[in-house]
Amino acid sequence: MLIFHNPVHHLHQGRHEMFRGRLVPCHEVPDRLDHVLAELQRRPLGVLQTPGEVSIAELERIHSRRYLDFLAGAWDEWVALDPANADIDALPSVWPTRSFRHDVLPDNFAARMGLFSFDAGTPLTAGTWTAARAGAACAIMAARELAAGIANGDGTRHAFALSRPPGHHAGADFFGGYCFLNNAALAVQTLLDRGLQRVAVLDVDYHHGNGTQSIFYERNDVLTVSLHGDPRTEYPFFLGHADERGAGAGLGYNLNFPLPRGTGFPAWNKALQSGLDAIRRFDAQALVVSLGVDTFEGDPISGFALRTVDYLQVGQAIAAANLPTAFVFEGGYAVAEVGVNVVNVLEGFGA
Amino acid sequence: MLIFHNPVHHLHQGRHEMFRGRLVPCHEVPDRLDHVLAELQRRPLGVLQTPGEVSIAELERIHSRRYLDFLAGAWDEWVALDPANADIDALPSVWPTRSFRHDVLPDNFAARMGLFSFDAGTPLTAGTWTAARAGAACAIMAARELAAGIANGDGTRHAFALSRPPGHHAGADFFGGYCFLNNAALAVQTLLDRGLQRVAVLDVDYHHGNGTQSIFYERNDVLTVSLHGDPRTEYPFFLGHADERGAGAGLGYNLNFPLPRGTGFPAWNKALQSGLDAIRRFDAQALVVSLGVDTFEGDPISGFALRTVDYLQVGQAIAAANLPTAFVFEGGYAVAEVGVNVVNVLEGFGA
Repeated sequence: MLIFHNPVHHLHQGRHEMFRGRLVPCHEVPDRLDHVLAELQRRPLGVLQTPGEVSIAELERIHSRRYLDFLAGAWDEWVALDPANADIDALPSVWPTRSFRHDVLPDNFAARMGLFSFDAGTPLTAGTWTAARAGAACAIMAARELAAGIANGDGTRHAFALSRPPGHHAGADFFGGYCFLNNAALAVQTLLDRGLQRVAVLDVDYHHGNGTQSIFYERNDVLTVSLHGDPRTEYPFFLGHADERGAGAGLGYNLNFPLPRGTGFPAWNKALQSGLDAIRRFDAQALVVSLGVDTFEGDPISGFALRTVDYLQVGQAIAAANLPTAFVFEGGYAVAEVGVNVVNVLEGFGA
Repeated sequence: MLIFHNPVHHLHQGRHEMFRGRLVPCHEVPDRLDHVLAELQRRPLGVLQTPGEVSIAELERIHSRRYLDFLAGAWDEWVALDPANADIDALPSVWPTRSFRHDVLPDNFAARMGLFSFDAGTPLTAGTWTAARAGAACAIMAARELAAGIANGDGTRHAFALSRPPGHHAGADFFGGYCFLNNAALAVQTLLDRGLQRVAVLDVDYHHGNGTQSIFYERNDVLTVSLHGDPRTEYPFFLGHADERGAGAGLGYNLNFPLPRGTGFPAWNKALQSGLDAIRRFDAQALVVSLGVDTFEGDPISGFALRTVDYLQVGQAIAAANLPTAFVFEGGYAVAEVGVNVVNVLEGFGA
């Protein structure tokens, strides 16, 4: 398995997030990725590579230019407001709800930050843009290799993008949920741009992949399937219900499996099988897996009960779809166990 | 002049707000109202009264039931989540932006708080609901007296609702900008419900009255006029542009005067005259003034340059409209000067 990892991911290291009403230390920490790398040294599954640069034009295949411009300049703007800001991260505190306008770009930095976000748990830091762009590059490079392998017939069939920060909550023009650029969506688009007609996304992170859903919601060349905690009680709360089936040309190409807190592997695996059945019916030519392992029973901010050993079976189930597959790293906050759980999926997959 | 003041306003006393990226002590403090009361003792302008109770049905004339239910129960829910929450105020930290759903009411408290708000500067406290409801009652009672005076021909022609917390940023179903219930909108609706056909709102607070605008945006029985800092640079950022003229039946019944930071009294007064001209053309039968004095040159969070003496002329200009008028207290954060500036408006008005 080809593995692209982000060598500058640690440049994104948030200090605090608003969580349940308080400013607390960030849950999404660089150690998460380092634990995966360490486990990949214990159980080598393939060649580790670092990605090259990707262009803004490639990111614009998924994200709006004005959003990318904001992200690229955000830290400098923030510090220019007040040199003391260099010592704290930027968090949004005002946003446009119902009846407000989204079409006029305010000059005010705080206003633009609120326009382009949906939570105060995702700090913008000095290194966020550099880290996010390199993380996105991992996903794009993995997809390129996969596309080339499919074209060759006997080339790369599987890849793993060890991206960080994660991506599946990021929309075309907003950040949130620890995500800035939608790595999985960029991988999907890269596959399509290199000749594929139908790509499926399987999002197994505990949290609904709202960004990925919203990006592809009106398209029929991408089937998005997400298994996640019920948004009535679980973050990101405002999307991920079972009745969201897509719109326009995309009607029928979005599939959500909201599951109650406490769901264990048997029930979760049943939903996974249903999702994989839909991917088979869609006749996908390739699969992008948003691989979060916050479904783990020990995750500090999530509510499912998968055990470490279950992740081997998750990998086996995905392998049974028999598709060229790019895994993209997403969430998982039981830091010490993240590496074992992620690598169990990959080992079960048979990479 | 009949003056209704809120005897329980101090029950709403936020501890901290998110402001320019930091948790800072609240700008909207009980002392603001107490300074107005003190000035009204030095320069008595009329009888001070406390309001009776208003029913939920009266609040529902402007606000949605699900929003009112949320506000009424919010503090108990917040503390039930964690007894330690009793020592901190509730601030939202996740909200639905583009592509998210607003139609499904989440079970999760933090999610509902985010659904019903647009900033993290407006803490929900133990006494918020009680204080906001009594503040709204001040405005409703003032409007009732005014309506009765108009009906009588020789009764009350002027009233002042010394409401707190303020109201003009609150929409039909969201709080923000230190506002929970839209006191001015409730006064307008009370006047209409008691027989008037056309009521004008004049919002002279430094910040755009986004809540009031949004509540009446599609109606032609209410003309809303707002003079305020340009939303491109000034809070609340996402509404208040000059091209917002109303919609549907309300097209032409909304008038915004966004003015640049640094605007002094001459330019501000010119916009005021234009607004009053529009109110005359509308043939309003009564006027509700959202009276914020954060246009004051010494205001710590605003950017106009009105002097204390100018407020006498503001009152005179409004008096020249020769309309039954209810003043409703809004913003003003130069705490020590708030009383003098507010009472100058009322004295200039000739109450």
